[in-house]
Amino acid sequence: MRAEIVAIGTELLLGQIIDTNSTWIAEQLAVAGIDCLYQSRVGDNIERIVDVLSHALSRSDAVITCGGLGPTQDDITREAIAKVMGVELLRDADAERRVREMFASRGRDMSENNLRQAEVPVGGRIITQVIGSAPGLICPVGDKVIYALPGVPHEMREMVTRAVLEDLSRRSGETSTIRSRVLRTFGIAESKIAEIVTPRFEALENGGAGGPRIAFLASGIEGVKVRITVKAATEAEARVLLDQEELALRALLGESVFGIDDETMEHSLGEVLRDKGLTLGLAESFTGGLISSRIVAVVGASRWFRGALVAYNEEVKYQALGVAPGPVVSAAAAISMAEGACSLLGSDVAISTTGVAGPDEQEGHPVGTCFVGLVVRGRSSESLVLRLSGDRQRIRELATIAALGNMRRILLGP
Amino acid sequence: MRAEIVAIGTELLLGQIIDTNSTWIAEQLAVAGIDCLYQSRVGDNIERIVDVLSHALSRSDAVITCGGLGPTQDDITREAIAKVMGVELLRDADAERRVREMFASRGRDMSENNLRQAEVPVGGRIITQVIGSAPGLICPVGDKVIYALPGVPHEMREMVTRAVLEDLSRRSGETSTIRSRVLRTFGIAESKIAEIVTPRFEALENGGAGGPRIAFLASGIEGVKVRITVKAATEAEARVLLDQEELALRALLGESVFGIDDETMEHSLGEVLRDKGLTLGLAESFTGGLISSRIVAVVGASRWFRGALVAYNEEVKYQALGVAPGPVVSAAAAISMAEGACSLLGSDVAISTTGVAGPDEQEGHPVGTCFVGLVVRGRSSESLVLRLSGDRQRIRELATIAALGNMRRILLGP
Repeated sequence: MRAEIVAIGTELLLGQIIDTNSTWIAEQLAVAGIDCLYQSRVGDNIERIVDVLSHALSRSDAVITCGGLGPTQDDITREAIAKVMGVELLRDADAERRVREMFASRGRDMSENNLRQAEVPVGGRIITQVIGSAPGLICPVGDKVIYALPGVPHEMREMVTRAVLEDLSRRSGETSTIRSRVLRTFGIAESKIAEIVTPRFEALENGGAGGPRIAFLASGIEGVKVRITVKAATEAEARVLLDQEELALRALLGESVFGIDDETMEHSLGEVLRDKGLTLGLAESFTGGLISSRIVAVVGASRWFRGALVAYNEEVKYQALGVAPGPVVSAAAAISMAEGACSLLGSDVAISTTGVAGPDEQEGHPVGTCFVGLVVRGRSSESLVLRLSGDRQRIRELATIAALGNMRRILLGP
Repeated sequence: MRAEIVAIGTELLLGQIIDTNSTWIAEQLAVAGIDCLYQSRVGDNIERIVDVLSHALSRSDAVITCGGLGPTQDDITREAIAKVMGVELLRDADAERRVREMFASRGRDMSENNLRQAEVPVGGRIITQVIGSAPGLICPVGDKVIYALPGVPHEMREMVTRAVLEDLSRRSGETSTIRSRVLRTFGIAESKIAEIVTPRFEALENGGAGGPRIAFLASGIEGVKVRITVKAATEAEARVLLDQEELALRALLGESVFGIDDETMEHSLGEVLRDKGLTLGLAESFTGGLISSRIVAVVGASRWFRGALVAYNEEVKYQALGVAPGPVVSAAAAISMAEGACSLLGSDVAISTTGVAGPDEQEGHPVGTCFVGLVVRGRSSESLVLRLSGDRQRIRELATIAALGNMRRILLGP
């Protein structure tokens, strides 16, 4: 069973948005063990969409499209599919009712053009919409099939997960599964991680085709990611293989591994705080609330997170945190800020950030100079100085990960 | 002159990396006024690459490929192009010398497979490499041409900028340029925006080929984006056409337009605050610092932003903001929090958020119930209630944009 992906939308061809939909769908297909050999993008032009869909059906068994299902004049995917199928578009009464209901339940007026979204090529059927107002479509073409999905990522993913993968698996009779697991490390450079892992990497490469594989992922600033990939007959067997490989790698990598898959550094820090029964407060300056907003995304954070003061203006550092009037980009100011956060927010532990995100220097410090305060009430007060590079947003993100990672290190003990 | 883009690499088809190369090249083509009507992705398989390239040449005048030019066994773009051209691959002496030099100059051993990168289809020529070790290729096929570039973004972009765009422009005799501008609106549903804009949309569609075009972009939660696209002989003329069209649309859309292109709602709010000489403070609860972290990303925010208190734990709302002990998810608590922020942070204006991000209910309110406090010291105190849907992160983002948008509305006048 071969599937391919067609992303529809002129904004893609003009390079105005990045096509993350195709990448995500491709990943789901790989995990489901379904081959995807081609991916295409085409603009909002009926002849070209029909051409691309026809060509796709000539070489693949299933085509998944995203985009062009909205209510506006540019949205012509339904018309193109009907042309490829050689049929008319008919208004589906259930789909129409649902479109009307969705607007009514949100207390919004519905302009008539929304009813275009209830049109279905004869022979096709609806994938009911639960998030947006556009339903998806499953359109058989002989033995083959076209799945049409909205372009809005959230809506598309929900429909793929709920309806498309199941239909594809049923059609393909595919039973093997490919699964991956990512070990997230922090504090050791990529080349060193690669060196540490080499014995295992080579053992697996020599273990023959079909065995587990290790790869290093382009990791950006969040540390180095090591991905394990396995293929097995069932999900349960795949999980066993992944568990074995994870153990082998943890034996080599130690505590530099802070999380698995999507587990963030803040999630890991939260586990440590929860295990030790400690609460956390933050005093942020140039990071502007970024550390706090990452922490509140951790499930269960309300058990150990008190809150944050973003003291963006200097006066707020003096007045709300009790920092002594004077320089604010310094180790002393960072420690003061963290101690002030413990008081103001009533927390056991606090992290502070103060520094120069740019574009200008401050207090004689070059852009990228940051001080991080790390206070554990009654136990320790330390500060780190960081010299970071990049634009403002990158400097904030680098400081955030360093602050969280170092507090985790301190709490895990000497 | 029609160009199309082919991205080569199995990791793209497995959804393991996002194809940013195609998007970037597409943008360059648009700016150069060269039509790009199709984009494709294919894996490291010679027959399929040959198929895709041949099909591309049947409908476009120029094909730009990226990927598959490295030294490993997976890198077969050169072989595929030679097959399409019906010629042999020959080792190019200059290219070979340069590959050897690049390794020598970096003090690195060169494995022999790197010499594959010096092979050129007969009739083609090298684009000299300056960053990585793989040269690019310019391969004429009759009147048409295939440009082959490395997959590493930095290397690819340098070659496109230095060698490809110039060759394409020379071949096409194209001197016109395509430019777009996006109007960002908030507060009106996409279908309603489409309705409002319909008269203009139809006038332009009937104005003949080559005139300005309007399209609606999938906008997610940040409001509806309306894109104007124009084609003109020079950048200056394009700008005049865009200005005219922007005026015509603003006349229909009014103040629902808060920004142009990348201008965010927080940028727009910042301009209003700056114009009125007012400072802003925030009291966040479930939004967790998200509003604050968006605000500090606005250039010049330090002139009007004092800071934020993220009162994640209830006690912090009582102790640091002076909210009366009792329910915290209410209009009264939201207003209290905003007034408390004005005091604590010393700001003229404050926005607060308090609500239920989920997954559990709180104080009898269902998930998605949010109160936003909007205080302008000495002028007004109001609160809004929102009923939002989605997961925790989505509820935070929706509340953030609503809070910023409504404060902008209040400050812009009655």
